[in-house]
Amino acid sequence: MPIPPAAADAPFAADARRAAARGLITLGGEMHARGWSLATSSNYSVRLSENPLRLLVTASGKHKDRLTEDDFVLVDETGQSVEPDAPKSSAETLLHTTLTRFAGAGAIVHTHSVWNTLLSDRHGPDGVVTLAGYEMLKALPGVTTHDTAVDLAVFPNTQDIAALAEELAERLRAGDESVRRGFLIDKHGLYTWDSDLSGARRCVEALEFLFECEARRGA
Amino acid sequence: MPIPPAAADAPFAADARRAAARGLITLGGEMHARGWSLATSSNYSVRLSENPLRLLVTASGKHKDRLTEDDFVLVDETGQSVEPDAPKSSAETLLHTTLTRFAGAGAIVHTHSVWNTLLSDRHGPDGVVTLAGYEMLKALPGVTTHDTAVDLAVFPNTQDIAALAEELAERLRAGDESVRRGFLIDKHGLYTWDSDLSGARRCVEALEFLFECEARRGA
Amino acid sequence: MPIPPAAADAPFAADARRAAARGLITLGGEMHARGWSLATSSNYSVRLSENPLRLLVTASGKHKDRLTEDDFVLVDETGQSVEPDAPKSSAETLLHTTLTRFAGAGAIVHTHSVWNTLLSDRHGPDGVVTLAGYEMLKALPGVTTHDTAVDLAVFPNTQDIAALAEELAERLRAGDESVRRGFLIDKHGLYTWDSDLSGARRCVEALEFLFECEARRGA
Amino acid sequence: MPIPPAAADAPFAADARRAAARGLITLGGEMHARGWSLATSSNYSVRLSENPLRLLVTASGKHKDRLTEDDFVLVDETGQSVEPDAPKSSAETLLHTTLTRFAGAGAIVHTHSVWNTLLSDRHGPDGVVTLAGYEMLKALPGVTTHDTAVDLAVFPNTQDIAALAEELAERLRAGDESVRRGFLIDKHGLYTWDSDLSGARRCVEALEFLFECEARRGA
Repeated sequence: MPIPPAAADAPFAADARRAAARGLITLGGEMHARGWSLATSSNYSVRLSENPLRLLVTASGKHKDRLTEDDFVLVDETGQSVEPDAPKSSAETLLHTTLTRFAGAGAIVHTHSVWNTLLSDRHGPDGVVTLAGYEMLKALPGVTTHDTAVDLAVFPNTQDIAALAEELAERLRAGDESVRRGFLIDKHGLYTWDSDLSGARRCVEALEFLFECEARRGA
Repeated sequence: MPIPPAAADAPFAADARRAAARGLITLGGEMHARGWSLATSSNYSVRLSENPLRLLVTASGKHKDRLTEDDFVLVDETGQSVEPDAPKSSAETLLHTTLTRFAGAGAIVHTHSVWNTLLSDRHGPDGVVTLAGYEMLKALPGVTTHDTAVDLAVFPNTQDIAALAEELAERLRAGDESVRRGFLIDKHGLYTWDSDLSGARRCVEALEFLFECEARRGA
Repeated sequence: MPIPPAAADAPFAADARRAAARGLITLGGEMHARGWSLATSSNYSVRLSENPLRLLVTASGKHKDRLTEDDFVLVDETGQSVEPDAPKSSAETLLHTTLTRFAGAGAIVHTHSVWNTLLSDRHGPDGVVTLAGYEMLKALPGVTTHDTAVDLAVFPNTQDIAALAEELAERLRAGDESVRRGFLIDKHGLYTWDSDLSGARRCVEALEFLFECEARRGA
Repeated sequence: MPIPPAAADAPFAADARRAAARGLITLGGEMHARGWSLATSSNYSVRLSENPLRLLVTASGKHKDRLTEDDFVLVDETGQSVEPDAPKSSAETLLHTTLTRFAGAGAIVHTHSVWNTLLSDRHGPDGVVTLAGYEMLKALPGVTTHDTAVDLAVFPNTQDIAALAEELAERLRAGDESVRRGFLIDKHGLYTWDSDLSGARRCVEALEFLFECEARRGA
C-alpha cells in the first residue's frame, strides 16, 4: 500500500536523493572494477529517511559501472516504489527493506565476487563461515580486537526472496550474531551494511579481503 | 559475391557505424584492462543490419585497448568486406557471420583469458564445460534460476576456421544447447553473444566470472 | 608534553606539509587500488623535520583512496599531536615514531595485503620470513646482489602497540637484521620504510611482490 | 669510445627521441599497472637508428609509472651514453645493445612479474621453458599455428651482465631457437623484443599471459 508520493515524499529533497544516487554510482564503478559486481549483478541501497522509511535501491539489470541517476528506485518499507514510472527495482529489494528495518542498516551493499562464491560453496553445508584472528576484522562495526571470531551465516540460495527475507528478519529479531555484520548466500554473494555508505563500503572491502585470505588459506 | 557498396550500404548511416565502433572501442579497453584481450588477441562484432546482413568486425592484429574508428571492417554474410580499402578483418570473421546468421547474435565478443584457457584445456577431452548451481548463471539469456546447469561446448582448436564455422552452423541448426549461449575453443578462448553489445558484455563478464570460479574450485 | 606550536613548528612551512600530504594522498590511492590498503586499513607517514622530530601521519579511520589534506596529524617524537583540533592519529603512531627515531626512517608505509596476511600467518610460529635468491631483493636498501637472503621479523599481533613499539625499539637498537628493512605483524600487515617516500614506495612494492612470489611458491 | 655527439647525433632529431620516450613512458605506466615493473624494476629501450646504432634506454632506478622525458639515456652499440650529463643507464644496457645488434630488435621490454619469477624458478634447472599448444603463441613473430612449441631459454641469474651478454650474443649468432623470441633469467625476469614498440608490447603481453597459464596449470 504505497503512501501517496505528494504527501510522503516532500521531505526527500531532490538534493538528498541525488547525493545518495551519486554515492551509489561511484560505489558501482568501484565494485565493478574489482570484479565484485560484474554482469549487471549486485544491488545497493541507501536509506533516505526512517519515518516514513524510504530506501533508494538500484534498479534491476543495470551494468554497475554505468549507473545513472535514473537507475534507482525509491521504495517504502514494503519494497514498493513510491514514485510513478519507476524502473523495476532489484529482485532482492525485500532483503534491503528487511535489513533497514531489523538491522538498522543505513546503507547496504550486495556483491558477487569469485572469493565469496567459492567460500560460500565450501561452507554452505555448515551454514556458517567463521573468520578468526585477522586484524582486518577490526574494520567491522563493534570489533575492537583481532583476537576474536566473527561468524557469517551462509543461507542456501533460493529464488523465493520473500521467504529468505522472512527467515532473515526472524534471525535479526532473535539477535543471531551470524547475521549481525553480513551474511552469504550460497554460490550467490555477500550482503553487508552499516549506518552509512562510507561504512558499508568499509565493511564490503574488509569482508571481501577476508574471504580471499580464508579461501586461499584453505585451498 | 559482395553486394555493391553504393546500393547496399546506403542504409548504414555513418552515425550508426560510428556508434557501433565507439561501443566496441570502449569494450576493447575494458576487455584489455581485465587481461581478457591481451597481445592483439580477441575480436568483436556488432550487427548493423539484418537484410542485407552487415556486421562491423574488428580488424586483424590491433591492440584492443587502442582501437580507433578505422580499425573495423564492414562485412556481408559471407565475411567479405563491402567497402573499398578496408583493413584485413579478423581471421575468425566466419565465426561471427555464422553466429549472426544461425544464433541470431546482434553482438559477439571473443575473449582470451587465462581462466578460459585453463578451463578449456581441462575439459577439452570431454568437449564440454558444465556450469551448475551458480546465481551468476542468471546473467545469461533465458536462465531464470540458479538451480540449473549450462553446458558450453569445447571445440578442438584449429586453424581451419571455415571448417569450424561449418560445424558450428550445423550444431546451431540442430538446436544443440551447448552452443546456445557461448562456446570455448581449446586453449584459445570464448565466444559469446547476445542481441546487443550491452547484453554480450553481460554474457562475457558472467562467463569469465564463472570460469574463474570453476577453475579455482577444481584446482 | 607537546612543544608549543608557535615556537616549534614555525620551520614547518605550510608548503612542506602540503607537499608531504599530497605525496601520501597519491600513495593512498595506489595502495588502495592494489588492494593493500582496503577498508580504511593501513597508515603512512613522512618525517617533516628531525630536530625537533615532526612526523606527518595519516589520521585514523579514513578510506585511503579518499584522503584529503585534512586527514593527517602532525606529531612529535612521543606521537602526540602538536596542532590544535587535530583528528585522531593512527592507533599505531608509536610504531612510526619508533621507526623514525631508531631506524632513521624518513617515510614509513604500513600495508594490509592478502599475501602479507597469508605469509605472516604461515611464518608466524617461526617469527621470521626469509626471502632468498630473488633479483627483486635488490630494490631494498643495501642489497646489491640477488644471491642473498633477507629476513623479516614476524611479530605476534597485539592491541598493545606501546609494548610492540618498545620491543621494536630494542631490536633496532641491538642492530637486529630482521627489522632492518621491514617487518610483519601476524595476520595484520607489513611495515617498511626508507629515507623518503619514493624509496618507501619502492620498498613496499618490492616486498609485496616478493610476498606474493613466496606465498604462491610455497602453496 | 663514444662517437662525438655533434657529428653522430645530428640525425636523431629531438622529435624522434621525444616520440620514442613518450612511447616508453606510456609502456612504463602499463607495465607498472599490471605489476610487471614494480619497485623501479625493469628496463625498456627503442632503437633510434641502426647506423650508427643508437638506443634510447631507460635510466636506472626510476619508478616505471612516473618516467619523464629526462629519464632516458641515448647509448651507442657499446652501451655508452653519447650525450653529456646523462643519467646512469640501466645496469643491463649491454643486454639491450646485444639484442639490437644480434637479434635485430627495434624495441626491447624487460619485465619482472610474479609469474615469470615463479616459472623461471621452476624451470631454471632445465634451462628452458616450453610453451606448447596455445593459440596465444600466434602473437609471437613467425608463429602461424597454435600446434607448435616455443622454447624460451632460462639463464641463471648473475650480476655479471657483460658475461651474460656475451653468452646471449653467442647463442644468437648460432641461431639458437630458445633465444629467438625472448628469454628468462632465473627469479629475475623476461626479455622480449620485436621490430618496434607496438610489437614488443604484443610479445610481452602474450608471454606474460602464457607464463600465468603455464604456472597455474602446473601448480
